[in-house]
Amino acid sequence: MIKLIVDTLGGDDSPRANVLGALKALRENEDLYIIFTGDEKEISKLIEENGFDDGSRYETVHAPEVITGEDQPTDAIRLKKESSMIKAIRILRESDDIAGLVSTGATGALVAAATLRIGRIRGVRRPAFCPILPTMTGGIVGVCDSGANMDCHPSQLLEFAVMGSLYMKHTFGIENPRIGLLNVGTESEKGDDLHKEAYRLLAASLGDSFAGNMEGRELLSGKYDLAVCDGFSGNVLVKTVEGTALQLLKKIKHDIYSKKLYMFGAMFLKQMFQEEKEFMNYQNYGGSVMLGTGKIIVKGHGSSDETAVSKCIEQALRMQKSELNSKIAEKLAELVPEAENTNTDNGGQENV
Amino acid sequence: MIKLIVDTLGGDDSPRANVLGALKALRENEDLYIIFTGDEKEISKLIEENGFDDGSRYETVHAPEVITGEDQPTDAIRLKKESSMIKAIRILRESDDIAGLVSTGATGALVAAATLRIGRIRGVRRPAFCPILPTMTGGIVGVCDSGANMDCHPSQLLEFAVMGSLYMKHTFGIENPRIGLLNVGTESEKGDDLHKEAYRLLAASLGDSFAGNMEGRELLSGKYDLAVCDGFSGNVLVKTVEGTALQLLKKIKHDIYSKKLYMFGAMFLKQMFQEEKEFMNYQNYGGSVMLGTGKIIVKGHGSSDETAVSKCIEQALRMQKSELNSKIAEKLAELVPEAENTNTDNGGQENV
Repeated sequence: MIKLIVDTLGGDDSPRANVLGALKALRENEDLYIIFTGDEKEISKLIEENGFDDGSRYETVHAPEVITGEDQPTDAIRLKKESSMIKAIRILRESDDIAGLVSTGATGALVAAATLRIGRIRGVRRPAFCPILPTMTGGIVGVCDSGANMDCHPSQLLEFAVMGSLYMKHTFGIENPRIGLLNVGTESEKGDDLHKEAYRLLAASLGDSFAGNMEGRELLSGKYDLAVCDGFSGNVLVKTVEGTALQLLKKIKHDIYSKKLYMFGAMFLKQMFQEEKEFMNYQNYGGSVMLGTGKIIVKGHGSSDETAVSKCIEQALRMQKSELNSKIAEKLAELVPEAENTNTDNGGQENV
Repeated sequence: MIKLIVDTLGGDDSPRANVLGALKALRENEDLYIIFTGDEKEISKLIEENGFDDGSRYETVHAPEVITGEDQPTDAIRLKKESSMIKAIRILRESDDIAGLVSTGATGALVAAATLRIGRIRGVRRPAFCPILPTMTGGIVGVCDSGANMDCHPSQLLEFAVMGSLYMKHTFGIENPRIGLLNVGTESEKGDDLHKEAYRLLAASLGDSFAGNMEGRELLSGKYDLAVCDGFSGNVLVKTVEGTALQLLKKIKHDIYSKKLYMFGAMFLKQMFQEEKEFMNYQNYGGSVMLGTGKIIVKGHGSSDETAVSKCIEQALRMQKSELNSKIAEKLAELVPEAENTNTDNGGQENV
């Protein structure tokens, strides 16, 4: 039995999408047990309406307060102790038998709470975010880190590479992930000091898995399975891809309405345009995982629907079954001299 | 009479596009004089074929060697002294009456040669690149710096803001450019140390022109006239926008061919798709200018055609006529205490 917490508040369609998504996952995975945090009454009502009647597969912890994007992350942790997210983090911290948490709530608060309250995997300095994007060749690509760490040290980028590639392998079945280092050109001497040093470190440590420097324009090309980035440029990368694609599709839609001829032609392409939009919608590819925390943390998009939530839960299940965190710890122990691991700076406890 | 050098080698359609583009600009601007560098014979032949016969408006300097993207920039400067680009830089440096240079050659060599051989504007620590991109609302947006400076100091970002906004104003007629600082979120406390400090500096120095932090997804939205970036993330930004748009259009094209119904509908949209492609083709918006050098340097895209080259020349003319470099020096002198200007580190001489 794998136990996961589902935070039912904080998304656009919460608690509905969160509860129904969890029930979907419960039906599809016999070895899954869910702890819901949120408004007990609302959760019960949704479960009843949905006709799920196996009371031995879930429990509910009443925590009706919600953290929003307006809450300062550290204030939220301190002042909203009874919120569905902070209570979930507390239960996760205190219960050895619970594997992880799926939330569609405020990202900043989740990062802060997970970093401060849940320990890290041995050997990891800082947890990192790894969202998944679609490639133009029908595959996917991970981006690690996409914004949890702003001022990075080269050795952190090596950690991101190790965590991200093991994640792509064990959660998505990509046997030998090709790792690219986000940089301003493909030549080895490109970039600022951080990326020049990171290049040397990745080349020396990763062997053939390291596919060298990668330019932002190649992210969606299908040539890479993982883009390794400092949190600043990784965040710029992901948001720019998303924004450019959505704005271009919006412009095309706008331009279609400018001429009757275009409107006529577009009638035949309606389904295709819908598919392009769905293609670029990255909640279809799963949640953004926090890698490096001692327990599994999956952050679903705020706009997640029922299916997206159930996919986030599936992701957490696969991560737990593949023992991803132990594999990360093993790999980092091989790569990094033990002495370096004492040089930690986030005050978190270490697990695994 | 404004004298400009046109480097006729190094582009995909060189020397043809460069020479014909220059002749187009000569016909449209009576006060323009061109110095061509490149293969004298080929240049003469193209001018003759084109029927341009006013020999008093141009001259040619024979420099048939070409610098390619494969040449190491510093090697190119040292070893290819007779190349069209390095000879152009030498003439530009030595001739007080020549205002600037337009080149479609290798970017790295041009940056290195211009930085090392052409002095900077007084008050500028390092020149920066400022390409122009289209916005979805029909306007344009500049990105400064897009890759000339890797490890930046916050005060450099203020220089980029000053240079870029004066450029947008005087070359493109945007009266009060709205300046955004590329960051990972819009709140003032976002980002790494560099961007937090840059935010404070821009907010304190720029007044209402500073529109705060900008996310990558907003670059094309039309809300900003200038994005200020460190060279690393600015380069990621520009390449990611370009790559995402082109790859999405390519995917749409591919998907159209997957069904006969789509192919039928797309016949009526052919012109529109062509226009979208042209829209995202940023050579249509002019070259990428190097701001901060004592003389005008405009870098046209390697794939520039005749029209694109003539647009780059027009840009250089507008920059010269508006006395952009003097205005940059004046503005920087207002903002930065004189003492700071002595803290220079690129070994270049100062002009203006």
